[in-house]
Amino acid sequence: MLTNIKINEERLWDSLNEMALIGATDKGGVNRQALTDLDKQSRDLFISWCKKENLSISIDQMGNIFARREGKNNALAPIMSGSHLDTQPTGGKYDGALGVLCALEAIRTLNEFNYITEAPIEIVMWTNEEGCRFPPAMTGSAVFSGLHDLNDALLIKDQSGTTLGSELARINYNGSTICSHRPIGGFIEVHIEQGPILEIENKNIGIVTGAQAQKWYEINITGMEAHAGPTPMTIRKDALVASAEIVLLVNSIGNNFQPGGCATCGVLEIANPSRNVIPGNCFLTIDFRHPIDKSLQKMDKELRKNIKLIEKDKKVEIEIKQILELKSNSFNKSIINTIKDVSNNLNYTSKEIISGAGHDAVNINSIAPTAMIFVPCIDGISHNEIENIYKEDAIRGTEVLLHSIIELANNSSKIINN
Amino acid sequence: MLTNIKINEERLWDSLNEMALIGATDKGGVNRQALTDLDKQSRDLFISWCKKENLSISIDQMGNIFARREGKNNALAPIMSGSHLDTQPTGGKYDGALGVLCALEAIRTLNEFNYITEAPIEIVMWTNEEGCRFPPAMTGSAVFSGLHDLNDALLIKDQSGTTLGSELARINYNGSTICSHRPIGGFIEVHIEQGPILEIENKNIGIVTGAQAQKWYEINITGMEAHAGPTPMTIRKDALVASAEIVLLVNSIGNNFQPGGCATCGVLEIANPSRNVIPGNCFLTIDFRHPIDKSLQKMDKELRKNIKLIEKDKKVEIEIKQILELKSNSFNKSIINTIKDVSNNLNYTSKEIISGAGHDAVNINSIAPTAMIFVPCIDGISHNEIENIYKEDAIRGTEVLLHSIIELANNSSKIINN
Repeated sequence: MLTNIKINEERLWDSLNEMALIGATDKGGVNRQALTDLDKQSRDLFISWCKKENLSISIDQMGNIFARREGKNNALAPIMSGSHLDTQPTGGKYDGALGVLCALEAIRTLNEFNYITEAPIEIVMWTNEEGCRFPPAMTGSAVFSGLHDLNDALLIKDQSGTTLGSELARINYNGSTICSHRPIGGFIEVHIEQGPILEIENKNIGIVTGAQAQKWYEINITGMEAHAGPTPMTIRKDALVASAEIVLLVNSIGNNFQPGGCATCGVLEIANPSRNVIPGNCFLTIDFRHPIDKSLQKMDKELRKNIKLIEKDKKVEIEIKQILELKSNSFNKSIINTIKDVSNNLNYTSKEIISGAGHDAVNINSIAPTAMIFVPCIDGISHNEIENIYKEDAIRGTEVLLHSIIELANNSSKIINN
Repeated sequence: MLTNIKINEERLWDSLNEMALIGATDKGGVNRQALTDLDKQSRDLFISWCKKENLSISIDQMGNIFARREGKNNALAPIMSGSHLDTQPTGGKYDGALGVLCALEAIRTLNEFNYITEAPIEIVMWTNEEGCRFPPAMTGSAVFSGLHDLNDALLIKDQSGTTLGSELARINYNGSTICSHRPIGGFIEVHIEQGPILEIENKNIGIVTGAQAQKWYEINITGMEAHAGPTPMTIRKDALVASAEIVLLVNSIGNNFQPGGCATCGVLEIANPSRNVIPGNCFLTIDFRHPIDKSLQKMDKELRKNIKLIEKDKKVEIEIKQILELKSNSFNKSIINTIKDVSNNLNYTSKEIISGAGHDAVNINSIAPTAMIFVPCIDGISHNEIENIYKEDAIRGTEVLLHSIIELANNSSKIINN
């Protein structure tokens, strides 16, 4: 390890803070949803920073941005690192931006030290990772990996009916580079943990060995609208009461599949709600996760079995549609070992960990050797305006990334596919 | 009873259908919410019909419209009849409009027969009966009756933050007549039953003897937003799970207070909902009704006691605010008896009934002798686009109204306050 090469800590921290001004909320968070004007501003700023570092920029049909630094041998596949700049509506400063700006800081450091790696290096910013405005999540990296059809992705609509493709064109990020995978020597994504484990166990670095399996669902509940006053309780077909039963069912399935299970209803909408109308139609989303594929299948079975009972009991019709399935994931052992060695050499404490959240790295893992570095976040909180990290943890994560990139870019032939 | 005077059945039915075109929905219902452009159109049409009958129009500060037909002795307090023209977002053709247009048909008939009553007669259209856009319901008649402060009512906001007062001005219905009660000899409101009882018991006319007590609440639930993936089930503070518990609690309270109890959550909103974010803040409305005041108090007690348990169990904060209270109501015996006699003389079957819904008549009952006539509606459905009535029932209700008005207007001195 080249111990003389060190990142510029203040430069890293300043860039994180400057990026966090775009979409900053009163409560200290960031609301910078995919393909809004604010997303465009963050992309423009990122590109201006990359151009200062003499990186060559390319933008693909999904608006994914690649910033390339040439190596000594440019026939080698690049080592790639990055994450996303879009956020949840109640997002924080670091979910996504950290991974992009750690990679930028690594490049800035290499430039400062005039250090040229063997293989080229690319920073990437993936489009629409959060999926809150244009579900499902991680669309940019999914299309790049061939897991999602380009044209389908461009036609995804937000709640107002606007398509992802038209918004991409509106903010001028509908690039011309074909969005499809090409040889990548290795991919590392730095990300905040978004959970409490590293903090509770007092570890500096999370070495992510894989990701949980996921299933997302959309549920439509159809009952009968009627006046809340003169409609006797016994003849009601209340879609909200049925929805409430499903929310509690989902929560109990999460509790019953421990350790590791997570189950969440994030969206519940009543059609044409009114205080004195019995709800007739509801829309509900479900997010199921488990580290073990088989357990997730059992959660699915429990859900479907019990929804049938609720349907009968509450005299409503329930339509259940699975809209996303991710198998559990194992990352690349060579890259995991590189991260572990670098972390040990820097005398940081570390822990192997499974990601509960989905990440672009999970998609890229299907086409290239991939791993992730987790940085602890305070109280394990993310997707919340009070999401926060310690500066020292951001620095440590970036140092591990920098030296892992150097290691991999200089020895990319030694990366073995799992 | 003047058996030679009969309404024009086709004219009544045609006017109902013409009015139903304003805000007509694809599913055969009406979406004509208070103080929208569509509400203005319905008011303009109503006034144009009244002017053709040579009625004098006055509009008060709440936008309530009065259309007056002079009698032989105009020093006598008028006999008044009417209802509202605003609807729910998923409203039907008859909820409200029937009561206004039955009264108009009664006046048209008297004009046609050149029959002048002793006391003057007024048709009234009350503003914002539904309260779905500007809660609470029945604001126009409440301000008129002194039950709601005028300035407070004008400042009620819809979900976009627009005030009732500014919308009243925008559609040019901020009248100059002081909105305050004045002597009324008697008030009758015709309305669809909005419940299944008359249909089930095969009765033509509901003679409404009073109305249920009501309490409306607003509930705010505060938990903690966090990422749905890496946040273990055990440390969650899920505001939607707590809300679901409250929805089921409300439903079980309704079921436990039979006969007569009704309990409904009509609105549930998640703040900044996202599919992979644990909901941190929810807003919920509750509508409680019971014919007996004491039972409603017990429902209130059950609610508050159990919400405290949910708050503790789900590790969230729950704020409960009562925003409306209506005591149970007894209508005027003289007017009830008049309606009953007229109905018998016309050989219609009838039944005494308590209204489960709130009505403007309930407010007017606090300042003037009042009763209501219910017309059966198909399957008891209202606040739904498939709300429907039989033409024959509309005709029977209007005949009862016409002859009750004649009776009361000619003998207003005999109306005794309860």
